[in-house]
Amino acid sequence: MIFSRTAPIDIIGSVQNRTDKSGVVKQPVPMKLFVVLLLFAALLASVRGYNYNTTWFETKVDHFGYANNDTFKMRVLYNEEHFNISEPGPIFFYTGNEGDIEMFANNTGLMWDWAAEFKALLIFAEHRFYGKTMPYGSKSFSSVKYYGYLTVEQALADFADFLQNVKRTWPGTAQSKVVAFGGSYGGMLASWMRIKYPWIIDAALAASAPILQFQGITPCGVYNDIVTKAFEQQGEKCVDNIRKSWIALDNKAKSGKNGASFIRDNFRICQAVFPSNYTIVRDWLYDTYGNLAMMNYPYATNFLKKVPGNPVKISCSYLKKNFTNDNDLLFGIYEAVNVFHNFSGDVACNDVENGAGDNLGDAGWNIQMCNEMVTSFCGNGKTDMFYNYTWEFTQFRANCEETYSMTPDLYKARMIFGGVDISSASNIIFSNGDIDPWSAGGVLKQLNPTLPTIIIKGGAHHYDLRAANPEDTSYVITARNVEKEYIKQWIKVN
Amino acid sequence: MIFSRTAPIDIIGSVQNRTDKSGVVKQPVPMKLFVVLLLFAALLASVRGYNYNTTWFETKVDHFGYANNDTFKMRVLYNEEHFNISEPGPIFFYTGNEGDIEMFANNTGLMWDWAAEFKALLIFAEHRFYGKTMPYGSKSFSSVKYYGYLTVEQALADFADFLQNVKRTWPGTAQSKVVAFGGSYGGMLASWMRIKYPWIIDAALAASAPILQFQGITPCGVYNDIVTKAFEQQGEKCVDNIRKSWIALDNKAKSGKNGASFIRDNFRICQAVFPSNYTIVRDWLYDTYGNLAMMNYPYATNFLKKVPGNPVKISCSYLKKNFTNDNDLLFGIYEAVNVFHNFSGDVACNDVENGAGDNLGDAGWNIQMCNEMVTSFCGNGKTDMFYNYTWEFTQFRANCEETYSMTPDLYKARMIFGGVDISSASNIIFSNGDIDPWSAGGVLKQLNPTLPTIIIKGGAHHYDLRAANPEDTSYVITARNVEKEYIKQWIKVN
Repeated sequence: MIFSRTAPIDIIGSVQNRTDKSGVVKQPVPMKLFVVLLLFAALLASVRGYNYNTTWFETKVDHFGYANNDTFKMRVLYNEEHFNISEPGPIFFYTGNEGDIEMFANNTGLMWDWAAEFKALLIFAEHRFYGKTMPYGSKSFSSVKYYGYLTVEQALADFADFLQNVKRTWPGTAQSKVVAFGGSYGGMLASWMRIKYPWIIDAALAASAPILQFQGITPCGVYNDIVTKAFEQQGEKCVDNIRKSWIALDNKAKSGKNGASFIRDNFRICQAVFPSNYTIVRDWLYDTYGNLAMMNYPYATNFLKKVPGNPVKISCSYLKKNFTNDNDLLFGIYEAVNVFHNFSGDVACNDVENGAGDNLGDAGWNIQMCNEMVTSFCGNGKTDMFYNYTWEFTQFRANCEETYSMTPDLYKARMIFGGVDISSASNIIFSNGDIDPWSAGGVLKQLNPTLPTIIIKGGAHHYDLRAANPEDTSYVITARNVEKEYIKQWIKVN
Repeated sequence: MIFSRTAPIDIIGSVQNRTDKSGVVKQPVPMKLFVVLLLFAALLASVRGYNYNTTWFETKVDHFGYANNDTFKMRVLYNEEHFNISEPGPIFFYTGNEGDIEMFANNTGLMWDWAAEFKALLIFAEHRFYGKTMPYGSKSFSSVKYYGYLTVEQALADFADFLQNVKRTWPGTAQSKVVAFGGSYGGMLASWMRIKYPWIIDAALAASAPILQFQGITPCGVYNDIVTKAFEQQGEKCVDNIRKSWIALDNKAKSGKNGASFIRDNFRICQAVFPSNYTIVRDWLYDTYGNLAMMNYPYATNFLKKVPGNPVKISCSYLKKNFTNDNDLLFGIYEAVNVFHNFSGDVACNDVENGAGDNLGDAGWNIQMCNEMVTSFCGNGKTDMFYNYTWEFTQFRANCEETYSMTPDLYKARMIFGGVDISSASNIIFSNGDIDPWSAGGVLKQLNPTLPTIIIKGGAHHYDLRAANPEDTSYVITARNVEKEYIKQWIKVN
């Protein structure tokens, strides 16, 4: 079916206007934000066990200069079961993001679900400096002279080099259209591949891709507003109690050693907790709400942690009442966050320094945040259910310089990828879930008829990329169908 | 005036189809091709004496990685005489190519001629590693660890970084549209700026930009076919005599020492000529015909050499007759090439090792040819007026590796810039002169209505970029008017 659609697709109706908010400095928390971002793609960590082959592609460490002529091998997974050389279909290309590519291959069920219908060759390419694709092996993170080559532009060029090589050498693919798929940072990469290499990528599905989550484009508080919105849908009381809990926690910490002990015991924290360091617990709680919103799927998932279906609803079920004292409130909070951290009941204590698990490439992502992926977050405790904090670029920059010998560039991503000024681009679907916090930086407004936006009501983080599931909402089913029709139209499949 | 034009603009009518040709190896001449390319922009070298200010912009040596955090200063010329902060016009931005930026500023009269009407801010940015923009000062060409950063992508990023900074800091420019102008390699840069940074560049005039002069896109022989065509317009006899002259020259060389002496004396060569090295004279002659075609303007110009108006016509005036022996023919050839080398009569002898003069950045261009700007040429003596030679990539690569420690990448330019697959781009005018040899690699066929092509009958190398002149042909006047209307349409000027 070929069709032309010029109006924006907005499954839930109108998109709320967002305004910036001022925040009062309470305590700078720049390093904590790392943790939030490390969860960026964590929701893909479930394994379904698809079949794929592995190959390694040799490419240059520096695609844009000749001072360093080192090469490395990029890991690539592929499945050609449905690809027919005599009647070749398209290439479905997953633009690997910040983690092991097997995790993404196993959790992007949409590509596998569509492969037969499109007769597609499936390819999943691993991002440099993640998984097993280490340009300098075990030395990769030892010096900026190695990890200095961990940038988006270089990663995109790896993919471009690989795909150009595929077209030249892989039987049957010379005329194949290429569709890029990606979720989260992978969605950013998918859209940027189409924007920067439109002769290589014919169409892109950028799911939950926060390409606008940069300085001067998206206000820093929107992310937390959306986390709050996800919880608000379970009743105002839930949000009220969470908002009050920060004061209760603060009161406990201020009450001295006994208060700190209460915090540790109440939340089953593995680490020692003192009045001076209690914010490690606070920040761990803060992250948990974002994680619950991101993985708020209608069915149980087993990612880094075992989580039930509709986890936000279950979490809020512990926060429905009026608590009469801080102790009761904080115990309710414990039960609420336990939905994420210990729903299985297997966890003896909560490790607040590893709240996101260890399947993701945090070493790499921390570096990318310190060069070009500079994203800012803040809270105000009013439009959101958190506490006042502002984004402190000065401290953030100092941390980056000290830790990585890198100075973050606030304007680079915008210069290279255009920010919101991408209306000259085409054939990219930007999909977002309306309760996914990362939709804060997503493209929600259609910039031209060939850049459709899809907003999935009640949808969590790149829900549409997941395999079809009997519990799927009608919204995600519709979204996937619309996405498929756009892609068919753009790559001329009937 | 706003108008919409969807048909290709082809001032001379239909464009001839070009086919590849096979060539027989006679003698590999890869290094000679350098010389041809060094003339790429030489035709701009006349100085008119426009007024401009100079500033220096600090930018990164490596825009795409953080292993090297060196910075350097890029030279920028500007004129704000017609730019009005209270009613700001566009920025006209010259994408500096392989030479001193003052040469380009002084020889792109079109920008100066249009400035008042558009109220434009004129900016001319110097390309890294040319003119006075030496990222590592006097060491710049001493090691690949320095000149390894001389690539197109880095140069474009310099321009993007600069323009983003202008928009943020130059009063009145925040909302200004930016139009890129460039001729020859500068035209390639102008088009690629729009393709890679459409959020920074709103429109581009790419004059005589051979963006298709790459492996597997344009057959290697087309350049010489067009040189031949330029001479054919002055009569078949001219071309016949030139074609015969290679055999005459070869006969002389084969006749031993006396023949070599004849060659030296006849052509007033400064260097010693032996039977073993006579091809230095042959290659110098070969280059001369290309130069004459490139600078075949209707009025006298004073670039690297003083040349009369319509130099090809004057050159051919010495080759109208049937020569009865080799000596007479070669003397006619001497007079024909003298139109380029010594029309003023001031030159005591011809330096064949410096046939293109020394105003251009040959050190830089030789390097660019050895990394990404890998262009191929060949001759056959049948469809062209030259001699059989093929392009020997193996030898070329060996030369690059030995001289510059660089391996040329045949596919890089195509990967990064798309070759002919740029139909998703917009707002670029590709103009070419039909007797300009570089139109061989130009975009002559309109790829979509927002990528108009203009072919200027009888036009030499980026003739349209030159200042208006009383001797201008009606074709170039029409071309400039059409170009202006497109640009007005794209940047919304009435």
